[in-house]
Amino acid sequence: MSQNLDATFAALADPTRRAILARLAKGEASVTELAEPFDMSLPAISKHLKVLERAGLIIRGRDAQFRPCKLDPRPLDAAADLIEKFRRAWEERFDRLDDYLKTLQHKDKNK
Amino acid sequence: MSQNLDATFAALADPTRRAILARLAKGEASVTELAEPFDMSLPAISKHLKVLERAGLIIRGRDAQFRPCKLDPRPLDAAADLIEKFRRAWEERFDRLDDYLKTLQHKDKNK
Repeated sequence: MSQNLDATFAALADPTRRAILARLAKGEASVTELAEPFDMSLPAISKHLKVLERAGLIIRGRDAQFRPCKLDPRPLDAAADLIEKFRRAWEERFDRLDDYLKTLQHKDKNK
Repeated sequence: MSQNLDATFAALADPTRRAILARLAKGEASVTELAEPFDMSLPAISKHLKVLERAGLIIRGRDAQFRPCKLDPRPLDAAADLIEKFRRAWEERFDRLDDYLKTLQHKDKNK
């Protein structure tokens, strides 16, 4: 689980890979189609695709000639859940502080 | 913005740094306190803190002796937004497919 998160976040830490994921979120595409908007060689794109594939974020078709890439958004759930967990813990901290201040006010009133 | 996302996701791609963030989400802590649960030297922890600081995810206090670390959750918003964008685009793809199938069924009924 932790290793999966390492791979997911590392895969997301690159603008080309994020652009590839954004494209694939709209539907599957071939490597040539994916390479089109970038000023990059096919081998350079293939390298990025391998990182995404190892992170489980894309699935490649089996047809040797035309291996379309498809998004697999499942690893994104764990990544989003973790970020949400941090934010919630952070907000709860302020809620606790708020409760504490209310307790102080209440004590002050009852003096 | 894109460089910020690079730094945010790269910072999240490590289990020690995620554990540090989880700890700081509950409240600020000194480097010594942060190092406690890990079998790691203080310099190793400091290295991780520098990565988190460069990503804008933590703020260090100015007191030279006791420089407490504090979470700054703002970069997490952009990271969560991006992941959400991917997931929404992916879901919209299925909504469009669903609409298309409904149109086909409708045409079939009216034959």
